[in-house]
Amino acid sequence: MSFDGLTAGAALLAENQPVHKAILTAVKNVEDNQNYVSVGYGGLPNLDGEVELDAAYMDGDTLGFGGVISVKDIKNPIEVAYDLSHYKRNCLLAGEGAMAYARQNGYELKNMLSEQSRSRYEESDKQVNAELLEAYGGHDTVCVIGKDQRGSMACGVSTSGLFLKRPGRVGDTPIIGSGLYADSEIGCAAATGVGEDIMKGCLSYSITGLMHQGVDVQTACVTTLDNHLNRLTRCGHNAGSISVIAMDQQGHIGAATNKAAFPFVVADENHVCHIYVAANEGGKNNIFRPNDIWLKNYTGD
Amino acid sequence: MSFDGLTAGAALLAENQPVHKAILTAVKNVEDNQNYVSVGYGGLPNLDGEVELDAAYMDGDTLGFGGVISVKDIKNPIEVAYDLSHYKRNCLLAGEGAMAYARQNGYELKNMLSEQSRSRYEESDKQVNAELLEAYGGHDTVCVIGKDQRGSMACGVSTSGLFLKRPGRVGDTPIIGSGLYADSEIGCAAATGVGEDIMKGCLSYSITGLMHQGVDVQTACVTTLDNHLNRLTRCGHNAGSISVIAMDQQGHIGAATNKAAFPFVVADENHVCHIYVAANEGGKNNIFRPNDIWLKNYTGD
Repeated sequence: MSFDGLTAGAALLAENQPVHKAILTAVKNVEDNQNYVSVGYGGLPNLDGEVELDAAYMDGDTLGFGGVISVKDIKNPIEVAYDLSHYKRNCLLAGEGAMAYARQNGYELKNMLSEQSRSRYEESDKQVNAELLEAYGGHDTVCVIGKDQRGSMACGVSTSGLFLKRPGRVGDTPIIGSGLYADSEIGCAAATGVGEDIMKGCLSYSITGLMHQGVDVQTACVTTLDNHLNRLTRCGHNAGSISVIAMDQQGHIGAATNKAAFPFVVADENHVCHIYVAANEGGKNNIFRPNDIWLKNYTGD
Repeated sequence: MSFDGLTAGAALLAENQPVHKAILTAVKNVEDNQNYVSVGYGGLPNLDGEVELDAAYMDGDTLGFGGVISVKDIKNPIEVAYDLSHYKRNCLLAGEGAMAYARQNGYELKNMLSEQSRSRYEESDKQVNAELLEAYGGHDTVCVIGKDQRGSMACGVSTSGLFLKRPGRVGDTPIIGSGLYADSEIGCAAATGVGEDIMKGCLSYSITGLMHQGVDVQTACVTTLDNHLNRLTRCGHNAGSISVIAMDQQGHIGAATNKAAFPFVVADENHVCHIYVAANEGGKNNIFRPNDIWLKNYTGD
């Protein structure tokens, strides 16, 4: 889902634009596309049939962080999150207060429930066991991490959260250290999947922390995820789906997942985008570039 | 402010009660006391004159985590947070959704704005520079960490947040890894001060992570805080007040602060409570037990 947005964002980086422009472009592309049903317009409704959105942005140069939690009727939550990342206080806003800030500052309002979202909600089984809710299969939170030609790193994330979540439920997305973390001295990381299980291990901060200790970015992703899954197993807790992506200060990338396959998109040094897949086979993670047959099978096209 | 509550909680631990009972007792004692103006009833109003509360609970055995964000009119937010920590999904709830959960599940409702809070708000300068908001001087978030006789560890935190915060503003308190973290295999930690600055470094998770690497609890507190303050300095960011407390699996305690003095309370192995002070002199942290003269000077009694 992030391919078109990332291609547009990478083109900005190629023109030596700052990383925040690339990240906002990529995330907004996904927020605005109603076919990506787990983010922004046309997002997955909560148990009351409303689309409640979370988004966050972190600037790796300043460690400035902004986020909105459980907001409705805001066309581009990532824009408000980015705006808030410039403040020293009142950077993370929830609910009515966050919506008031967006209205007062002229952010575009929109009913985010598309006809498609409404139908999906109406046809759903509202008696589903809430304890078994899973992240949306095809694609979930949009997580964009990046570095510009000056070496500045940043991260932006946006989601409508779990389908049929309890109203007001907050996942890992707007939680610094869990859904995202960025430090231009080290690297950045982001996570997607069942937010409750991601938060238990502060996975984005943990990955960045390992990189800070000198661990390479791919090992940092795999080690963080494996250690966390092992810890949850010792708690007797069967983790939901979790996938992580990361980039180090040199632009090397890493990813890990506990799913059979987690596709993601990477812009290469020439700013050309490629699809990659992180795959977990029997607990072992690896990354590959899928061929057309693999992609056709995956998307069902 | 936590002395009476901690004394009551420690008495429960002495009777071999589970850690959650001790923590809930201690936090509720502070929530219910209107003289503790930064927590629960009689809390610090936001810029609109309303008391908006955040609370969270983490169970170190299960890594179960529950929290409420920006809730109004709930007598004991920590009780709702503890309740939510038993779920696998929908554990962290914000705003209207969190309040609906509390109402539907029979939690006591109460107008949390005391006459004292209202007067403090009415007499305040609402034109204050939001970027310079500081944590309440005398006492701020209540953070209780503990271990019971079975070795189970947990953490509970509750606050009304920064005085004159923007409505909906969320600090570190309900953010797992920032305001609190607990893992019975390692230890637990909690933080208080300017939440925005605490979140930038996921301080509670960072302290627990160092303990996991074998660093002793006091060094973990000091190292985490010093490294974070140094990182913020390199960002050109002048940090607000930050104080942290931690306990390892053996029950040893640690604390660090960037304030001249940060008093906290510790129950000893005989379940008797003592006041300690973490002090920062020229960037060097140490912990001492204050005498009566020190305490009189500090409290102004």
